[in-house]
Amino acid sequence: MSTKRNVLFIMCDQLRFDYLGCSGHPFLKTPNIDRLAQRGVRFRNAYVQSTICGPSRMCVYTGRYVRSHGSSWNGVPLRVGEPTLGDHLKEIGVRNVLVGKTHMVPDREGMARLGIAPESMIGVHVAQCGFEPFERDDGLHPDGPYDPDPAYDDYLRRQGFEADNPWEAWANSAEGDDGELLSGWLLAHADKPARVPEEHSETPYMTRRAIDFIDSAAKDGRPWCLHLSYIKPHWPYIVAAPYHDLYGAADVIPVIRSERERQNPHRVFGAFQNERVAQAFARDGVRQRVIPAYMGLIAQIDDQLGLLFAALEERGLTDDTLIVFTSDHGDYLGDHWLGEKQLFHDVSAKVPLIVVDPSREADATRGTTSDALVELIDLAPTFLDYLGGRPKPHVLEGRSLLPLLHGPAPADWRGYAFSEYDYAFDRIRLALDTPVSGCRLTMVTDGRFKAVFAEGFRPMLYDLLRDPDEFVDLGDDPNYADVRSRLSDAFFTWTRNPRNRITRSDEAVAAKDDAQRHYDRNIESGILIGYWDEADLAAERSLREAYLKSRS
Amino acid sequence: MSTKRNVLFIMCDQLRFDYLGCSGHPFLKTPNIDRLAQRGVRFRNAYVQSTICGPSRMCVYTGRYVRSHGSSWNGVPLRVGEPTLGDHLKEIGVRNVLVGKTHMVPDREGMARLGIAPESMIGVHVAQCGFEPFERDDGLHPDGPYDPDPAYDDYLRRQGFEADNPWEAWANSAEGDDGELLSGWLLAHADKPARVPEEHSETPYMTRRAIDFIDSAAKDGRPWCLHLSYIKPHWPYIVAAPYHDLYGAADVIPVIRSERERQNPHRVFGAFQNERVAQAFARDGVRQRVIPAYMGLIAQIDDQLGLLFAALEERGLTDDTLIVFTSDHGDYLGDHWLGEKQLFHDVSAKVPLIVVDPSREADATRGTTSDALVELIDLAPTFLDYLGGRPKPHVLEGRSLLPLLHGPAPADWRGYAFSEYDYAFDRIRLALDTPVSGCRLTMVTDGRFKAVFAEGFRPMLYDLLRDPDEFVDLGDDPNYADVRSRLSDAFFTWTRNPRNRITRSDEAVAAKDDAQRHYDRNIESGILIGYWDEADLAAERSLREAYLKSRS
Repeated sequence: MSTKRNVLFIMCDQLRFDYLGCSGHPFLKTPNIDRLAQRGVRFRNAYVQSTICGPSRMCVYTGRYVRSHGSSWNGVPLRVGEPTLGDHLKEIGVRNVLVGKTHMVPDREGMARLGIAPESMIGVHVAQCGFEPFERDDGLHPDGPYDPDPAYDDYLRRQGFEADNPWEAWANSAEGDDGELLSGWLLAHADKPARVPEEHSETPYMTRRAIDFIDSAAKDGRPWCLHLSYIKPHWPYIVAAPYHDLYGAADVIPVIRSERERQNPHRVFGAFQNERVAQAFARDGVRQRVIPAYMGLIAQIDDQLGLLFAALEERGLTDDTLIVFTSDHGDYLGDHWLGEKQLFHDVSAKVPLIVVDPSREADATRGTTSDALVELIDLAPTFLDYLGGRPKPHVLEGRSLLPLLHGPAPADWRGYAFSEYDYAFDRIRLALDTPVSGCRLTMVTDGRFKAVFAEGFRPMLYDLLRDPDEFVDLGDDPNYADVRSRLSDAFFTWTRNPRNRITRSDEAVAAKDDAQRHYDRNIESGILIGYWDEADLAAERSLREAYLKSRS
Repeated sequence: MSTKRNVLFIMCDQLRFDYLGCSGHPFLKTPNIDRLAQRGVRFRNAYVQSTICGPSRMCVYTGRYVRSHGSSWNGVPLRVGEPTLGDHLKEIGVRNVLVGKTHMVPDREGMARLGIAPESMIGVHVAQCGFEPFERDDGLHPDGPYDPDPAYDDYLRRQGFEADNPWEAWANSAEGDDGELLSGWLLAHADKPARVPEEHSETPYMTRRAIDFIDSAAKDGRPWCLHLSYIKPHWPYIVAAPYHDLYGAADVIPVIRSERERQNPHRVFGAFQNERVAQAFARDGVRQRVIPAYMGLIAQIDDQLGLLFAALEERGLTDDTLIVFTSDHGDYLGDHWLGEKQLFHDVSAKVPLIVVDPSREADATRGTTSDALVELIDLAPTFLDYLGGRPKPHVLEGRSLLPLLHGPAPADWRGYAFSEYDYAFDRIRLALDTPVSGCRLTMVTDGRFKAVFAEGFRPMLYDLLRDPDEFVDLGDDPNYADVRSRLSDAFFTWTRNPRNRITRSDEAVAAKDDAQRHYDRNIESGILIGYWDEADLAAERSLREAYLKSRS
């Protein structure tokens, strides 16, 4: 093991697993990401633990399921005290640094209750989800109160791109024939170039900021885990020239949808089909207009990653840096009569995941793919493992991927992957008339079948082998009762076994097992339970002395 | 509603539900507790949420199940930031005050991580589980490192009871014929009087401390919730004169056990039967020696409560003080071939619970009993309700009992009660060879049947109607497959629905439902999802304006 190791943890936002060259897209070119896959392992069954940004990321950054950390939707604060990757890395002297998006919302009430000043070092650590915010930018800065005025706005202004809101007016708007602004929020404008010159758009800017950090970290000397977290190819679907017309309607892969999916669908599925974004993507021509921009945004990321990897190489960091490339969830883009994400079809819940371990132990797997069931909560334990930390299975609910990078998957690798979504915050709750506390959806898959359990409704079920497009919902097919029952059992087992005893490790619980086998350890503390008389107690004390003697 | 209300929350430790006059004990006299029951409601189906002190109390003090707060055994710190009754009461200006035991162990690592100084006001609040420790005394201070030197030791020394450890030497030892100390830890000495004069023993001392607090609080003026938390009748089973011979062997009720329970028992049950304390209580004469002391300790509590209630009355507090009397779990005392607690037979998992609401609304139920299924996590929401706080169902997993005190149980009252126990810390884990993380036991009862689900083993099942003594384990009886299945379904429903979104209330989630029904509220923040063009957006903006106009 080298004396100093780093982690480069790249996350895209809303990038589908199938929109990469290496994952089989017939038209989209991603040579740099493809080369990354050649250097490492590409996981073909990697699932997010929630299908929207905030909760998915909170799972990644804590290594825990939504049911455990409780931040079930965008904007729901992560409870103060919830242990993060940053806490675990801090213990081993590794900086956990952010460039880009986390979607973290601090638990200000909890912080106030505990007297944690938001501007203190600990306050920032807590409020930033355990990250040192070299540059925090959640990537959405519309006109309005949402998340105004990032450092990127100042950057644009310094380049001369003046506006009340340069992010909106330059990076996320096009220009009409008469010089009028055409909002990048509107799908009709997805084929136009953003007003900002490409080199000043968000992806190159964030990439340069990552390199800035890497250079500053060299002076600092401590090892790091850098989370380079791009907002793209997330909406607004608009991209700067020349990426705006790198791809056209002819490059759009066919929509994955079937009339059958609209016929008497599961009520939750049906409610999502009625959402505005779903209806928009169902309109003729919308996919052809939007998807080329989505592809352009990905191509731009790929180009920037080429520059980033070259910068790593130039600085001699390639051999000591674990690199991860992934996304926080996918994007329906009209598939299954849906837009956005939320539900659990593969285009939404499955994400690209490439892991490059530069160490010699990983040479055997370079350039291979793995079909092992992976959850994104595996990343935190993977980073901790690579950086030399001890495993923490009483806190971290994922598992280190390093064994899968060093050889075949362990025999006891997980048999089921889980993902959760809370639709209490969606309009569909009103349509379905579900109580706020009862909007839980849970996906359970064994890789062959995928069930989605919905409180108060029948489950959905898909056969991923016979029906890889997930058109046929077997959720009420009597022939599949056994399959549903098996997946429900796995679901139940999972719900029964959260890692909730986070303040006491398994090792600590078992630390005195050997002594405990030989005598009643309570007598050491003077707590004497079940002793009749002095002779009884003396006998136990003799056992203890004999044990201590035998071990000395 | 009066301008100022208080709560007096009395908890005994290890007091069985059936060791009170009012609950039918044929010999034990508890006139003061019986009078309390006459003034309020006695709940006959009140279950603790864990069957040992620490986790049971953490459930009571947080209003949440073990699976939610994670403190699964004595000594497992309550995670920092876990919301407590004290936090909720603080918000409404009510002091939450402790006299006696909590078994709280602070999460020092978590506090250090968050920069909370243990000696700061917030640090003490966190470390004391949300209590203001007027007098903290966990009641076990043996020679050794367990929990040395409470204020009570100083008190005894001031009275002239000198010893290195006055708690052990005076309050919990007897004296032999030659003046030698006879340890109260040893069951053989349970019939002898403790050396300490009765008025200086623990129960009267704590009662006076409670009255001291009440007097000091009158000067302070703020309303309070006082947790008077007696260590007794918990072991050491020894009591001062005259209580040591108030009862004798003839007053010991028959043991509740059957040979059938020892024949091929469930493996977890069998392992507990092999424990030292179980074997001790199975020996001839042990119950007759120990139980009279246990009864004496209860009689002493009852006498002290008489003084306490008189003190309340003298101070004019009776009409404005909700009084609760309960325990943290029971005591097998040899029943079912067991000692201590841990498992879920009624003598262990069911506790006495009397609630007196002095308000006029509760007049209709005074002196009655209730068979509603009650969980001790109901206490925190009850106190909050009585003291004028808003309900917090997104945090508190129990329900206010006030409706049951004001009339018949609501139609939607719970159908199942739950209790958990983690035997990872018991020697039986070694005997059963269970992994540390797999020692979960969960009791589920509907009041008629009681199942105990044990990870890795078949369930246990008892029919509380036909077999009120719980002698017949129906856990593998094919005739009861339906019952097991129904209780398992209830267990599953419960595991699926923890209150984990603690940073956002249901009300907050639903706050804008009416607006949401009429237009896409995202447009207010500038987040425009699924809009094709300017016309599309303008149409939605018109809907918004129309809505606002209609509501103005």
